[in-house]
Amino acid sequence: MPEYRKDIILDEWVIIATERAKRPENFKEQIIKVDNKALNVCPFDRGNESMTPPESLRIDNRGNEVGKDSPWQVRVVPNKFPALVPNAQPFSQQYGPYMVMDGFGLHEVVVQSPEHITNISELSRWQVELIISVYIRRLIAIKKDNRIESVIIMLNQGKEAGASLEHSHSQIFALPLTPPNLMNEISRTRNYFNQNHRCAMCDIINFETKEDKRVVYENKEFVMLQPYASRNPFETWIVPKRHDSNFENISAQEANSFAQCLKVLVDFFYIDLNNPPFNYYIHTGTLDGTKDNSHYHWHLELEPKLSIKAGFEIATGIDICITTPEYTADYMKAGDFFKA
Amino acid sequence: MPEYRKDIILDEWVIIATERAKRPENFKEQIIKVDNKALNVCPFDRGNESMTPPESLRIDNRGNEVGKDSPWQVRVVPNKFPALVPNAQPFSQQYGPYMVMDGFGLHEVVVQSPEHITNISELSRWQVELIISVYIRRLIAIKKDNRIESVIIMLNQGKEAGASLEHSHSQIFALPLTPPNLMNEISRTRNYFNQNHRCAMCDIINFETKEDKRVVYENKEFVMLQPYASRNPFETWIVPKRHDSNFENISAQEANSFAQCLKVLVDFFYIDLNNPPFNYYIHTGTLDGTKDNSHYHWHLELEPKLSIKAGFEIATGIDICITTPEYTADYMKAGDFFKA
Repeated sequence: MPEYRKDIILDEWVIIATERAKRPENFKEQIIKVDNKALNVCPFDRGNESMTPPESLRIDNRGNEVGKDSPWQVRVVPNKFPALVPNAQPFSQQYGPYMVMDGFGLHEVVVQSPEHITNISELSRWQVELIISVYIRRLIAIKKDNRIESVIIMLNQGKEAGASLEHSHSQIFALPLTPPNLMNEISRTRNYFNQNHRCAMCDIINFETKEDKRVVYENKEFVMLQPYASRNPFETWIVPKRHDSNFENISAQEANSFAQCLKVLVDFFYIDLNNPPFNYYIHTGTLDGTKDNSHYHWHLELEPKLSIKAGFEIATGIDICITTPEYTADYMKAGDFFKA
Repeated sequence: MPEYRKDIILDEWVIIATERAKRPENFKEQIIKVDNKALNVCPFDRGNESMTPPESLRIDNRGNEVGKDSPWQVRVVPNKFPALVPNAQPFSQQYGPYMVMDGFGLHEVVVQSPEHITNISELSRWQVELIISVYIRRLIAIKKDNRIESVIIMLNQGKEAGASLEHSHSQIFALPLTPPNLMNEISRTRNYFNQNHRCAMCDIINFETKEDKRVVYENKEFVMLQPYASRNPFETWIVPKRHDSNFENISAQEANSFAQCLKVLVDFFYIDLNNPPFNYYIHTGTLDGTKDNSHYHWHLELEPKLSIKAGFEIATGIDICITTPEYTADYMKAGDFFKA
């Protein structure tokens, strides 16, 4: 059973999940092994469906939910080595000066194609649209459980970014608490709203589209930019122009626009930057009923792993970025990927 | 000139330091090149002193400060590709909805040996004592500048941990602000003190030495433990038994005890765990004159890079640890390294 633990110095939850240590692993080697199709049968390939736990969603290539034995385009299954489990209680206990809580939550995998592809860029535009629609369906379904407070949808691209199976997949985590990075964004933009009576992200969109130094792409519904306080070279945000706190509220038209942005962006990384590792994740409003989230502006953040986070970053929490976002924006706009 | 930048969503400073991009680097390759002695002349080796900027401290093998042309055992020099520079002003300006500030600060390198060694474990016990004494001397000297608010002393071991030169070295950063990770520790343990009228770390030492599940080593002055809410496999803290907010207040005897702990720990990583990458850093009280830090308890944290921080950790700020600290403590105590 995974556990949340909290000490009194850092005073933040960590998850101790030793299920993952069941994988072949040896701390005397420096590299975590990645299961490789050449060595192993891939549990995400078409035909190997019985190798995963029972699925929570299966859709066909037209986006329709279909039954267990039908041909599929996207499947959602519980993670076989979950960091969080549903059969647990989200109530903490005291242990000496510390706190401990069962590792309650959901940890799901979105299998993005029945074919063995290893980069999300290999998906076509309509396949990316299917992935987005699956994100939204799962988000709406998961939010019905009132023990869940936040949902994180994310993708690890490449083993250096943490992908332990190479077959392209996203992951969905549902937590009984709001994690600190999301909590900080929500509470700090709440302060900004209380001071200014404006959304901080709406102000950023207005400023950046006028300033035109860091915006790399824009369509009717979305802006894509290199953030001013960029933490990594080529860090990119995809931000909806229409203010909404919750990702799942987007219209079908907005979902297609969002998929267009995401497809362009991952193609740039795959083709122009030669397939570097990256993570992306969606930050969307939480479900803590005691706090209004309507000031918050959902968005996607993509963080490339193009530089190493070293002792300074770990000790301080301050990232050092070795490029300016103005430079990377110019580079991105100079190529063909982000032409309107 | 490096810059501190802050946006209004994350609301935390980052450092944009493009000096470092002058190194041979190509974002289309996935691995940042490490200067290698076989390819390049090492600027930290004996005889190549002119390749570094002028040094701020040079000591001989008896620990005495010596002049420019004398034989040396440890040198402290400004970083040639600094993330922070002293000839700047620590005052921020508004830029649209953001804040920006010159990259004021110090960024120094502690060259740990005139010989070309690549792991701190290759230093003998007395050499580690010299390194500790150099840390303390620089900390005391730097604190005289009242523009400085916090000092971070740290080491990156191995290129995967961010060491861009393989010759063993530590780094010292002096900042005009208190970084968020240190700020969180100080303010949360201040809350703990205000509630309980006891130091949180003193409570941890008392609990852990009684509980005897996570303490791996103890001498008269220090306790070494696997923290209860461990963020990484084999994360280790070295904590002084005597409560003090400031590292530089340790006695000569305590400094030797601290060096003994550090030497045992890095030997374990180098020999038993087969030289994995890690970072260590010292968290010590800040110099913000408006806030009392006397409740804070300085310590060293060593973070191994034995698992990858993936999208979940980046999106949430919650670490997933795939071992329990009880398990790693048992493993460490079973060997010969940590016998009293």
